[in-house]
Amino acid sequence: MTKTTSLYEPVLTEMAQVEDTLSALARVDTPWLRDMLSAVLFAGGKRIRPAVCLLSGKFGAFRPEPSVPLAASLELLHTASLVHDDVVDGAGMRRGRPTAGRLFDNHGAVILGDYIFAQAAALVARTGNAEVVRLFAETMVMMSMAQLAEDRAAFDYSQTVDDYLRLIRGKTASLFAIAAQGGAFLSDARGDHALALRAYGENLGMAFQIVDDILDFSGDEQEMGKPVGSDLMQGTLTLPSLLLIERYPADNPIRRLISDHGGSEHLKEAIEMVRGSDILSEAHTTAKGFGDAARGALKKLPATRERESLEEIAVYVLERRT
Amino acid sequence: MTKTTSLYEPVLTEMAQVEDTLSALARVDTPWLRDMLSAVLFAGGKRIRPAVCLLSGKFGAFRPEPSVPLAASLELLHTASLVHDDVVDGAGMRRGRPTAGRLFDNHGAVILGDYIFAQAAALVARTGNAEVVRLFAETMVMMSMAQLAEDRAAFDYSQTVDDYLRLIRGKTASLFAIAAQGGAFLSDARGDHALALRAYGENLGMAFQIVDDILDFSGDEQEMGKPVGSDLMQGTLTLPSLLLIERYPADNPIRRLISDHGGSEHLKEAIEMVRGSDILSEAHTTAKGFGDAARGALKKLPATRERESLEEIAVYVLERRT
Repeated sequence: MTKTTSLYEPVLTEMAQVEDTLSALARVDTPWLRDMLSAVLFAGGKRIRPAVCLLSGKFGAFRPEPSVPLAASLELLHTASLVHDDVVDGAGMRRGRPTAGRLFDNHGAVILGDYIFAQAAALVARTGNAEVVRLFAETMVMMSMAQLAEDRAAFDYSQTVDDYLRLIRGKTASLFAIAAQGGAFLSDARGDHALALRAYGENLGMAFQIVDDILDFSGDEQEMGKPVGSDLMQGTLTLPSLLLIERYPADNPIRRLISDHGGSEHLKEAIEMVRGSDILSEAHTTAKGFGDAARGALKKLPATRERESLEEIAVYVLERRT
Repeated sequence: MTKTTSLYEPVLTEMAQVEDTLSALARVDTPWLRDMLSAVLFAGGKRIRPAVCLLSGKFGAFRPEPSVPLAASLELLHTASLVHDDVVDGAGMRRGRPTAGRLFDNHGAVILGDYIFAQAAALVARTGNAEVVRLFAETMVMMSMAQLAEDRAAFDYSQTVDDYLRLIRGKTASLFAIAAQGGAFLSDARGDHALALRAYGENLGMAFQIVDDILDFSGDEQEMGKPVGSDLMQGTLTLPSLLLIERYPADNPIRRLISDHGGSEHLKEAIEMVRGSDILSEAHTTAKGFGDAARGALKKLPATRERESLEEIAVYVLERRT
C-alpha cells in the first residue's frame, strides 16, 4: 500500500481497520496456519477492492461496522480466488513471492483457499445484511463460473474478443461491482447512487483486468514479480493474444503455440510480435474505454473528496505498471 | 436414495424438492458444466444431511421455503468438500464412480468445487436468515480448518485418538450439527429443542465419520466403490490405525508404512492386522457411543414420527455397509 496511500486518503482510518481485521484472522493459534495465512494475506496486495467498497460507502450513512467486514471479506474472496488460480495454473510466483502452491504444495493450497473463502463468507455474514450476503454469494458464483470457462477455454483457438470480455466480466469485474454496490447498500445510499457506483465498479474491474493482461506481455519481470507471458504459457488467450490472432488469422506464433500445447520458442516469438506491434496500445485503448465509462458513472454522484478518490483510482488502474 | 427412502418417510415430499433444487442447479446452458455438475451431484449420495435438516425443521413451524434451500445447500457444501478432498487425496474413485479430478482433471475439479461452494452460499443466502447464514459460514470455516489439519497431519505418527476426534468434529460433525440446528432455527423451534437437535446432529456426525473410517478397513471394495485402505495409503491415520498404534507402539506395519511414506506391502499387512484383531469392534463401540448420545439427545423432543425417523437414521448410520 505504498503508492496507493494518497489515493485512499478519505478512508485511511477504515483501511487500517480492514488491515486489522485481516491481521486478526491470521492470528490463529496454529503456527503453520498462521504462516500460511500471513504468506497470502500480506503479500503486497494493493487492497483496491476494499478501498472501492469503503469509498462507495461514504455516499450514504457510513458505519464502519458493517462496512469494514464487507471490505475485508472482498479482499479475502479475491485472495482465495488467487490461491486457487495459482494451483490451477501451476504458477510458482506472484508479486515476486512464491505462490501458496509452491510454499505448501498444491493440496495445502486448495484447502487454504477453501479456508479463506469460508472466512470471507463468515465476515460477510457479520454485516447482517441479507441483500449483501446474496450479492456476495452471486459474485462467488459468477467468479467461479468464469474461472471454469477460462480453464475450459485454454488452448482453444476459436475464442473471440467478445468471449474474453464476457469472461473477465465474471472473473474480475463482478467483484469490483459488488465492492462498490455493496458498500453503497450498507450505508443506505440512494438507489441511483448505488447503481452508479455499481457501474463504476464493474467498468473499473474491466479496465483493471485488461491492464493486468497487457502487463503480462509488456511488464517488467522484476517489477511484476512473475514471468512475462505466463497467461499464454498456460494457454489462456487474453486480449493482446486475441487481437494478434484477429490480425494474422492464418499463421502466427500463438497458433503454433496452441497446436504444440506450449513451447517457449513460440511464446517468445508471440511476445515479441505483440510488443513490436501496436496491439498493446489498442488493448490499452479498450481498457481506457472502460476506465472512462467508470469515471463517467461517477458523474451522477455528488462531487466529494471520495468521488475524487474513486476517479483517481480509475486513472491509477490504467497507469499502473505492476 | 434406495434403502434410505423409508427412513426419510416423514419428509419425502420435501426431499423431492431438494432433488428438484439440485437438478435445477445442474440445468445450466453450458453443456460441459451441466455434465460436471450432474456427475458430482447425482452420484448416489444418501442425502443424509438434507434429511436431518428437514426432519429437524418439523419440530417447529416448518416452511419449505426457506428450509428446502438450506437442506440443498448443505448437500452442496458436502459435495464441494468431497470434490476438493478427492483432489487433495488424488483419489480416483468414489461411490464406484470416477472422481471429478479423474473425470475433468484436478484443475477443473478445484474450480468446480469452488463453483459448488458458491452455489451453496447462494442457496443459504436465500433463507434470508442472518443467524443461519452465520452458522453456515462458521461451519465452512470449521470444515476447511479440519481439512487443513488433516492434510498437515498426514504421515504424522504422533497423532492421538483425541486429535482424531477433534478433527472429525470439525470435518464432519459440524455439518451434521448445522443441518439439525439450522433446520430447527428456520422453523422457529423452541430453543431447548434446537439445542437438543444440534447435539443429535453433532453426535450423529461423529458416529457417521467413525463408521466411514471403519469401512475404509472392513468394507467391500465392490460395495464401497473405492479401494480399501485408501485413507492409510494417503497417510491419514483414522481411529482403527490409531488404535493399532496404541496397542503396538514399538513396531507395527503402520509405523513402517509411515517411515516409507507409503508402500502397498505395509498397507496390506496393516489392513490384515486391523481386520484380524478386535480393533474394528472397539472402534465400532466408540461409534456406537456417539450414536447412543445422538439418540439420547432426541429424548428431549416430543415423540413424533420425525423423532422416530431421526432415531432410525442413527441406527442406520451405525449399521450401514457403504
